[in-house]
Amino acid sequence: MLRTLLAVSITAALALNASSAAAETVSTERHKVSITSLTNKLDKPWGMSFLPSGELLVTEKSGALRRVKLDGSISVPLTGVPSVVNKSQGGLLDVAVDPNFADNNYVYISYSEADPQGGEGNSTAVMRATLTDTGLTNGKVIFRGAPKYKSGAHFGSRLVFAPDGHLFITLGDRYSAMDDAQTLDNHHGKVVRIKPDGSVPSDNPFVGKDDALPEIWSYGHRNVQGAAIHPTTGKLWTVEHGPKGGDEINIPEAGKNYGWPIATYGVDYDGSIISDKTHVEGTIQPHYYWVPSIATSNMIFYTGDKFPAWQGDLLVAALKGSQVARLDLEGDRVMHEETLFEQAVEQRIRDIEQGPDGYIYLITDDRAGQLIQIKPAE
Amino acid sequence: MLRTLLAVSITAALALNASSAAAETVSTERHKVSITSLTNKLDKPWGMSFLPSGELLVTEKSGALRRVKLDGSISVPLTGVPSVVNKSQGGLLDVAVDPNFADNNYVYISYSEADPQGGEGNSTAVMRATLTDTGLTNGKVIFRGAPKYKSGAHFGSRLVFAPDGHLFITLGDRYSAMDDAQTLDNHHGKVVRIKPDGSVPSDNPFVGKDDALPEIWSYGHRNVQGAAIHPTTGKLWTVEHGPKGGDEINIPEAGKNYGWPIATYGVDYDGSIISDKTHVEGTIQPHYYWVPSIATSNMIFYTGDKFPAWQGDLLVAALKGSQVARLDLEGDRVMHEETLFEQAVEQRIRDIEQGPDGYIYLITDDRAGQLIQIKPAE
Repeated sequence: MLRTLLAVSITAALALNASSAAAETVSTERHKVSITSLTNKLDKPWGMSFLPSGELLVTEKSGALRRVKLDGSISVPLTGVPSVVNKSQGGLLDVAVDPNFADNNYVYISYSEADPQGGEGNSTAVMRATLTDTGLTNGKVIFRGAPKYKSGAHFGSRLVFAPDGHLFITLGDRYSAMDDAQTLDNHHGKVVRIKPDGSVPSDNPFVGKDDALPEIWSYGHRNVQGAAIHPTTGKLWTVEHGPKGGDEINIPEAGKNYGWPIATYGVDYDGSIISDKTHVEGTIQPHYYWVPSIATSNMIFYTGDKFPAWQGDLLVAALKGSQVARLDLEGDRVMHEETLFEQAVEQRIRDIEQGPDGYIYLITDDRAGQLIQIKPAE
Repeated sequence: MLRTLLAVSITAALALNASSAAAETVSTERHKVSITSLTNKLDKPWGMSFLPSGELLVTEKSGALRRVKLDGSISVPLTGVPSVVNKSQGGLLDVAVDPNFADNNYVYISYSEADPQGGEGNSTAVMRATLTDTGLTNGKVIFRGAPKYKSGAHFGSRLVFAPDGHLFITLGDRYSAMDDAQTLDNHHGKVVRIKPDGSVPSDNPFVGKDDALPEIWSYGHRNVQGAAIHPTTGKLWTVEHGPKGGDEINIPEAGKNYGWPIATYGVDYDGSIISDKTHVEGTIQPHYYWVPSIATSNMIFYTGDKFPAWQGDLLVAALKGSQVARLDLEGDRVMHEETLFEQAVEQRIRDIEQGPDGYIYLITDDRAGQLIQIKPAE
C-alpha cells in the first residue's frame, strides 16, 4: 500500500513538474506555434499511438510499454510485453492501435525478437494482443522477419493500417545484409502487407511466386522507419534512411523495386558520391529525397483543424537537427519544404502523431525522453 | 589609328588579367566543379545569349549591348541600340538570338522604354534587329507593354523561343500596379506570346475576347524574370519573384491565372504572412516555391554532356545568397533541391546560360560584373 501511494505521488509530482514547464513560442511560415514539453521522463521512447480515450501508448526501446496521459503522467510498464533484444537499434519499437479498437481492444507492437531456436540472430517481429487496463493478454506473433540475422541495425518497424484493413510493416536491410533488399526470399529491406491476424492477403504481389515470400509488398528499401496513409488517395507513403545522404520518400506500389542498394542518392562520409547509379532500369525513383540526410523517423499527413494552413501537408520528423520537415503538397507533388522547430526541440525526434484534439505530438529519443505538444500560439 | 591600337591593347590586357584568375574548385553533391571568372569588367550586366560562333551577346543595364568572348575580351558597345530608361530596375534587359540566326541574323532585346508620346510613363518593350559585326540595324519594336506607367520597378523581361517559333516575353506587375495582374486589359503581370515579327498568333487564348489584350498568354504573375523551355515536353516554365517569400516556379498554360496578388505564399518583412489566401478558386498553385525568397533571376534546363548527373535538372539562378538552386526533376516533379555555389560566387547572379560547349555560364549584377564559367574540375 505504501508502495502504491508512493508511486502515485511520484507520478503526480512528475506531472506537476512537467506541466509547469513554460511553453515556447515559435514562428513558422504560416502558423505561430506553442511548444510544450509534457514530460521528460520517458526512457528512449520509440513509438506512440493514441487510444480512443485520448491517452497514449508509448514504447520505450528497453522493452517497456506505457500508458501516458496528456497531463504528463506515465504508467508503470504494462504486463504481457514479450522480451525484446534491446541492443543498438533493436528493442521495443512501434505500437499501433487497431482501427476497430473500440470493438476488439487489439493493439500491435513491433520489436526485435531473438531467434526462438536459440541461434544468434534476431529479426523484427510483430505481436497482436488485447489491451487491458494494466497489460497485454492473448499475445500472438503475427509476423516474424526471415531470416533471423545477427545484426543490431536497421529493423525498420513502423506499423500502419491501410483503409482496407491490411497492416503494413516497414522493415530494414539489417545493414550488413543490404544486398538481400534486392532478392525476394527474405524480408530484409522490404515493406510487407499482412492481415491483422497474420495471414497473407491473396492479392499480395508475390503470392504463388517461387522463391518469393508472400508477405512482401515492395522491395529495394534500406531502413524504412516512417509510414503514413495519404488521407485522400488512401495510398501508403514511406520514408527511409539513406546512408549519409539520400533519405527517401516513396509511395510504394505492389511488387515494385525501390532500388536500394543498386541505386541511391546517398553521399559518402567524405562528401563523395557512393554510386553514380541514381537511375537503374527496373527501379523506381524516390518521390522526394534529402541530401545530406536529415535522418528521418516517422511522418504524418496533417488533417486536423488546429493548423489550417498545414492541412494535407506531410510532416516528416527527423533525428538530425531535431526538425520536422513540412512538405507542402499539391496532389502528390511536393511544392515546398519548410524546416519546423529546428531551434526549439533540442533532442532527436523519434515519432510524430496527430492527436484526436488536432494538436501535434512528438517524442524524443533520449534517456530523458520528452513527450512534446504543439498547439497554435494564443 | 593610335586610338584603335590603344583599345586593342587594353582589351588584350584585360583578357590576360581575367584569364590569369585562379579557378576555384567547389564540391557539390554529384559533381566537383571548377569556377572561373572570365572577366569582371561588365557594368551591371543583365542578360546574355550565345551566338552560333560561341561568342556571347551581353546587355548592360545602362544601355550597352556588347560582344563578349570566352577569353574575357569585351567589345565596345554595339551601335543601333534604342535609348532605354536606365532607372531603378529599368534599363537594357534581356537579349535573345533567333533560333534561325544562321539564316536571318536576327536578335531581340528587351528594355524599359519611355513613353513615345512624351508622357512620364514607361514600359517593357522588345525590339528585333539584324546583328552586324558592330551593331544592330533595321530595328523594329515588335512589342510595347501597355499601358505606359510611371514606375521604376518590375519590368520582367525574359525572352524565350518556343519550339514552334513563338516568342514568349515575361513581364512584371510594375509594383504599384499589382492589381492589374488580375485584369486582361493591360500587360502588367502577364506572360505574352507573339510571333517574331510582333504579330499575334491566332491561337492565343484571349484573341477575339472583349477587354482583353490578344498578346496575353497567362496572367496573375508578379515579376517574371526567368523562363526556359522544357527540353522534352517543349513547355514554357517560368520563375517569378515573390514579395519577400513566395518566389514561384510555374508552368504557364494558355489563359490560366497564376494568382498574384490575390493568392500568394509571400511572407511579410516582419515574418508574418501577407495573406492566408494561398489557394483561391480559379487560380493555379505554383509548381514549386521558396519561402523565404531566394530572389530568382533566370533559369535553364541543363542538357549538356559535361555534367551528366545534372542532365534534365532545372538550374535556377538567384540574386540572394549568390546561389544556383538545382532542382532534380522526375518528369515535371521536383524530387530534390540542392543549393550550388553559395560560398563561391560573391555577387548576385543575374543570368545563367548553358554554352554550346556544355559548360554553364553566369553573369553577376555588379558594377564590376563578372562572366563566370563553370566546368567539371579535372
